[in-house]
Amino acid sequence: MTAWVLPDHIADVLPAEARHIEDLRRRMLDTANAYGYELVIPPLIEHLESLLTGTGEALDLQTFKLVDQLSGRMLGVRADTTPQVARIDAHLLNRAGVTRLCYCGPVLRTRPDRPHASREPLQFGAELYGHAGLEADLEVVSLALDGLTQARVGSLTLDLGDARILRSILAGSALDPIEQTALNAALAAKDGQEVAGLARGLGVEVQQALRALVDLYGDASVLEEAQRCLAGFPGVAAALDALRWMAQHVDGATVTFDLADASGYAYYSGVRFTVYAEPAGEALVRGGRYDGVGAVFARRATAAVRPAVGFSLDLKAVVAAAQQRGPKPAIRAPWGQGEHLRAAIASLRGRGETVVCMLPGHESEIDEFFCDRELVEVAGHWIVRAI
Amino acid sequence: MTAWVLPDHIADVLPAEARHIEDLRRRMLDTANAYGYELVIPPLIEHLESLLTGTGEALDLQTFKLVDQLSGRMLGVRADTTPQVARIDAHLLNRAGVTRLCYCGPVLRTRPDRPHASREPLQFGAELYGHAGLEADLEVVSLALDGLTQARVGSLTLDLGDARILRSILAGSALDPIEQTALNAALAAKDGQEVAGLARGLGVEVQQALRALVDLYGDASVLEEAQRCLAGFPGVAAALDALRWMAQHVDGATVTFDLADASGYAYYSGVRFTVYAEPAGEALVRGGRYDGVGAVFARRATAAVRPAVGFSLDLKAVVAAAQQRGPKPAIRAPWGQGEHLRAAIASLRGRGETVVCMLPGHESEIDEFFCDRELVEVAGHWIVRAI
Repeated sequence: MTAWVLPDHIADVLPAEARHIEDLRRRMLDTANAYGYELVIPPLIEHLESLLTGTGEALDLQTFKLVDQLSGRMLGVRADTTPQVARIDAHLLNRAGVTRLCYCGPVLRTRPDRPHASREPLQFGAELYGHAGLEADLEVVSLALDGLTQARVGSLTLDLGDARILRSILAGSALDPIEQTALNAALAAKDGQEVAGLARGLGVEVQQALRALVDLYGDASVLEEAQRCLAGFPGVAAALDALRWMAQHVDGATVTFDLADASGYAYYSGVRFTVYAEPAGEALVRGGRYDGVGAVFARRATAAVRPAVGFSLDLKAVVAAAQQRGPKPAIRAPWGQGEHLRAAIASLRGRGETVVCMLPGHESEIDEFFCDRELVEVAGHWIVRAI
Repeated sequence: MTAWVLPDHIADVLPAEARHIEDLRRRMLDTANAYGYELVIPPLIEHLESLLTGTGEALDLQTFKLVDQLSGRMLGVRADTTPQVARIDAHLLNRAGVTRLCYCGPVLRTRPDRPHASREPLQFGAELYGHAGLEADLEVVSLALDGLTQARVGSLTLDLGDARILRSILAGSALDPIEQTALNAALAAKDGQEVAGLARGLGVEVQQALRALVDLYGDASVLEEAQRCLAGFPGVAAALDALRWMAQHVDGATVTFDLADASGYAYYSGVRFTVYAEPAGEALVRGGRYDGVGAVFARRATAAVRPAVGFSLDLKAVVAAAQQRGPKPAIRAPWGQGEHLRAAIASLRGRGETVVCMLPGHESEIDEFFCDRELVEVAGHWIVRAI
């Protein structure tokens, strides 16, 4: 039987859960459509050098590699859809103005992100290109919150940060990638001692700022505290203003701040956000501004930087955190080819009802659908009645 | 720029086409749900020996192989979803009675099936397990035709055959797999001369039957002709009766027959069908009965053969053959945080409208959405008016 055991962190999705995923998928896509985000479907595989352009080592390690038997070239299976959508914006649509795109499809990862994570998230995301102002950041945050509200995951918490703060603090310091990764991890873990150790070789002001950063998470008072102890670094005041503006305008979530969260440090260029659902406590949505990414696609020689802001989530993880909906009740019908019976069944199905025909000899089987009604012939008419 | 060129037979799906695919996807899933087919989502990757169990060499060649970095074992990316769904029926649900399942997701293939085919079809399919009678065959055919009717691909042709006919003719003949493949191809191509050549070593009656088979395609008269010249082979009469019954009960398509079509020869065990849309002339749906497949999953020692019938189609190919629908018209709105404006926008979006906010400074851009209305403030009220 071991042949039927699936690889670790890979699972079949069975009917009850699949129904919820499909339901949420439609709600998310409909919400994005209502905001004017156009659906695109990038391919599962691409030439490796295209797929990984400008994405860094972490994504490379997450990407399954294949040989294309048609060309002999290396292919990668996408581990993240965002770079593909940026490529579509840059090279296929190539519009001058604002472009809003969304996507929904599986991605594959060589390793799970977290101890219980799937290696095959069903990634939904939305991206807004071409507008550098905070209005764009606010729009994608609103879209993410609107979508999640429909998922019934409980009350939402929006955690805000800004990639410019840590970048400004470290602007004069020469950290190699390994040191940077270690520092980001220590900041994320709020490990003040570790941060102090890693910062030892840096300037005194930088050391003080990093130590302060460790405690800069929580409610809006964090912004005042940051104003006091980090205002000396250029750009920090502007970043704090941006966060204040966002917090003021966001609707539908409790807003918190975490100025030390350096996840996506190499990627984000401005406001970044995480949405948590309180019951689960797990990050359900991650997003932010990544104006630098358009540059690697060398969109146009004259305007290489394409402003971009977006978010993504794993529908499977959201559904796991959501309140389950009960099954859709169905109607049991006899099997038969009589014209009136067929017409009655077709009419019910056309109105969105599930009608399950009992195949001959299986009438006494226990039904996996929740049939609360049956189609029966009474005085020559087919009628639906409660079971 | 060559880095951005996608691999051959791999493509991005851009908004206009993606919208149609998503629309058709929902119609297909809703139709399947209305028939009582439960959605399952099998994984993109599985251990190779599980994924390819009982599927034959053709699927092996079509399957991309990966190494699992967590276990060192070989994985395959699914090239077909049907065997996965049969595995789910056998090992996860393990129900005694009738089970109806459907699925929709991408599959990957090392080589394209046909000259212009995608290597990443978006496969939709439905399978009915546990009923050996023709009622099950008729139900899945009806479901396929109902679904396709909504795709606006023109008038449909249902082409019927039965895998038992060729199998019965060849029952006493020892053909090796290479000879069998060549014979199947020659029969599919209606190449009488090639068929005669390949059949030369076989019994005289078999040779005559194979030569007759080449011409046994067309309308219902084919069944009478087959009755005359093939009735000596055991089981052929029963297969012809099955085809006659199916043709009598099918609704919504012109029925034709092709008794020589041996596609899926190793796989199908009874009635098999293909649906064509006349304008394109390409096979859009393939399906049939494959009672043997359950056996390889060794479901239960006492009842190894699980009756199964189903079909699959590629949503991308169906959309390519379908009449295009026009874009959904949208409403243009100014950007602003006024309470009344936000409420007006939220209300329109809640009613299913697409409302695109013009971000500050982008008001004069040409809109990619087809905005036929705008939200404007008139005498203190936000109203929608035609542009």
